[in-house]
Amino acid sequence: MVKNCIENVRRKAPLVHNITNYVTVNDVANVLLACGASPIMSDDPEEVEEITAICGGLNINIGTLNQNTIPSMFLAGKKANQLGHKVLLDPVGAGASRLRTDTAVRLMQEVKFNVIRGNISEIKTLALGSGRTKGVDADVADAVTEESLDTAVDFVKSFAKKSECIVVVTGAIDLVTDGDKCYVIRNGRAEMGKITGTGCQLSAMITAFLVANPENELEAAAAAVCAMGLAGEIGWINMQPSDGNSTYRNRIIDAIYNMDGETLERGAKYEIR
Amino acid sequence: MVKNCIENVRRKAPLVHNITNYVTVNDVANVLLACGASPIMSDDPEEVEEITAICGGLNINIGTLNQNTIPSMFLAGKKANQLGHKVLLDPVGAGASRLRTDTAVRLMQEVKFNVIRGNISEIKTLALGSGRTKGVDADVADAVTEESLDTAVDFVKSFAKKSECIVVVTGAIDLVTDGDKCYVIRNGRAEMGKITGTGCQLSAMITAFLVANPENELEAAAAAVCAMGLAGEIGWINMQPSDGNSTYRNRIIDAIYNMDGETLERGAKYEIR
Amino acid sequence: MVKNCIENVRRKAPLVHNITNYVTVNDVANVLLACGASPIMSDDPEEVEEITAICGGLNINIGTLNQNTIPSMFLAGKKANQLGHKVLLDPVGAGASRLRTDTAVRLMQEVKFNVIRGNISEIKTLALGSGRTKGVDADVADAVTEESLDTAVDFVKSFAKKSECIVVVTGAIDLVTDGDKCYVIRNGRAEMGKITGTGCQLSAMITAFLVANPENELEAAAAAVCAMGLAGEIGWINMQPSDGNSTYRNRIIDAIYNMDGETLERGAKYEIR
Repeated sequence: MVKNCIENVRRKAPLVHNITNYVTVNDVANVLLACGASPIMSDDPEEVEEITAICGGLNINIGTLNQNTIPSMFLAGKKANQLGHKVLLDPVGAGASRLRTDTAVRLMQEVKFNVIRGNISEIKTLALGSGRTKGVDADVADAVTEESLDTAVDFVKSFAKKSECIVVVTGAIDLVTDGDKCYVIRNGRAEMGKITGTGCQLSAMITAFLVANPENELEAAAAAVCAMGLAGEIGWINMQPSDGNSTYRNRIIDAIYNMDGETLERGAKYEIR
Repeated sequence: MVKNCIENVRRKAPLVHNITNYVTVNDVANVLLACGASPIMSDDPEEVEEITAICGGLNINIGTLNQNTIPSMFLAGKKANQLGHKVLLDPVGAGASRLRTDTAVRLMQEVKFNVIRGNISEIKTLALGSGRTKGVDADVADAVTEESLDTAVDFVKSFAKKSECIVVVTGAIDLVTDGDKCYVIRNGRAEMGKITGTGCQLSAMITAFLVANPENELEAAAAAVCAMGLAGEIGWINMQPSDGNSTYRNRIIDAIYNMDGETLERGAKYEIR
Repeated sequence: MVKNCIENVRRKAPLVHNITNYVTVNDVANVLLACGASPIMSDDPEEVEEITAICGGLNINIGTLNQNTIPSMFLAGKKANQLGHKVLLDPVGAGASRLRTDTAVRLMQEVKFNVIRGNISEIKTLALGSGRTKGVDADVADAVTEESLDTAVDFVKSFAKKSECIVVVTGAIDLVTDGDKCYVIRNGRAEMGKITGTGCQLSAMITAFLVANPENELEAAAAAVCAMGLAGEIGWINMQPSDGNSTYRNRIIDAIYNMDGETLERGAKYEIR
């Protein structure tokens, strides 16, 4: 029941530590508040261990990584591991530079992640040690479509098994797998790709959902993915003729804010493979 | 007359230097523009003294402090003091890490602040050298309520006297005191806590209000607090059924933009103790 | 035909590398998506050369420059030059500190820019090695008005010739010149000055327009300026009674999102001198 997953977030109000990029950070904070969680942002090596210690989960996003924040990702990740916190990696732009690819790969080696979430291009980079990244969007040629679905599910399951964590690939169709079961999710709208940060927001929400549903990680991650996609659908319904991507951004976060368990349960479109 | 305070901001258009966090910085800039002030953001040690010299006030917010920006806070603060500028400290997350607590405490020792603004948990940390901080929100147990009001007023007055500056504590009830008089302000809505950055925005506005009302600091600070709370009330009235926290954020800044002196005077709900 | 310029952006979806300030970065990303381009933000010296290599254009904005990002501006600029990419400089706050003025001047010496875009105060600083900057807005005394237009056009043409690049000066009247022809553009609204970041957004859009119209740089820059101003006019028409600068910000980006070539062609108000 994905319904319980969001209700638990609202009831438990988990505190999520975000080491994230400065492009989408405000939306990340607001979407965490919208779903019932509480955000804290901190990225200096001198304090990230203490900050993560008072939280329930850690969301590491390498979108605008730099020399000061990279060490923080390792320090916070290891501390969160020691404390048994939920930890997520969003490898934004992996494949676009060696620094991004290497940082993401090294993080996977030194930190135990509960979830890795990216587009298919980023995940391929991590899985295959290669890949082409166009900005932070998945390569169209590599998109998960109905035609490529079987192959994609196999690929993602296999990467999840190898990585011993949940892998979330988002795109036209979203995949959420622990290597065994794979949620195939068909919520969302293509127009969400015209807003910066829906992926970053989702990563933060997944972290919050895992913290609030500790015994049920796979379903919690899938529920967050359904919630984000459904918010994209509801937000779109609320669009007026002259609205565009900037207003759509607000309407999506608003839809998360107003989403109750029943709405999510009814609106979630997934199958399990 | 709180009315004069906002009118002076619109008339004088003070330039405010912000060393602030990257989470809410865009809203901080827009709310300064909304109230009639002009923002400039700059946080590198090599330039902050020059930047602050061309401004009328300085807003120091430690929300995402780091090794590069901490020295800038001291340099800019001392320069602003030399020039007789208004200076405000927003000790975001004080108590959540030693780095934050120590930085805020050291800033208070080395820089003369006109105003310190935080939630009750942050202010307690500074006052008592202890305190528990949940993210950047006040501990519920420590909230200023009608029941705890007398004690809270005494505590804040005493901290203001000791610190020799105006102290602003925001929460369900807001307190603004110079140690002698205390404005008890009942504007605002609980839903404002579901938006990131209303506190950061308020700190920037208080700085602008002080610059524009240099002889009348206490009332200027109280007027800014009333204006922010009232904007939360007006913004809420303008909410449509499917709106949520993201749209509410816009509507609050919009309400500041449209607020004239008469509206503020009529809408301000305060008593003086 | 300015119409073709925006249609080419939508058709070619150029990827633009932004080294930009953290104040307006989210709006910069969203406006690039709105006009049909794709943004990537990256500012660490270790990766900027690789990142810029996979892009078509580079937008350098010194709005919150610091010790880590300044070297990145030089590295990325030189690499973009080697690759024949389009490069733009937005000298935010030049004149407000030596660090800003020196960085902008040195960038002009070491990097070949296709476009420099600023307000008249910033451009004067670069041209004359002096100038007074009030925040990031042009000095009112130096505004480009109908009265001062002839002098301003001469000044900007002369600076463009000397700098061997296109110069864009934005204000009440916008000027776009390659030193020979000068577009005098009368789109836009004064209220756009009450939003942070319309200048930053425009700089990013100009970069995208140049990448998509490589043989037609001057018209492409002028088309982007017309598009931004026209979006300000359309966005204003869509304003409701209680809306203010925060909602206006969304409506302007929305207007870019919905703008087709015909709308731009009909709405563009320019003459060539």
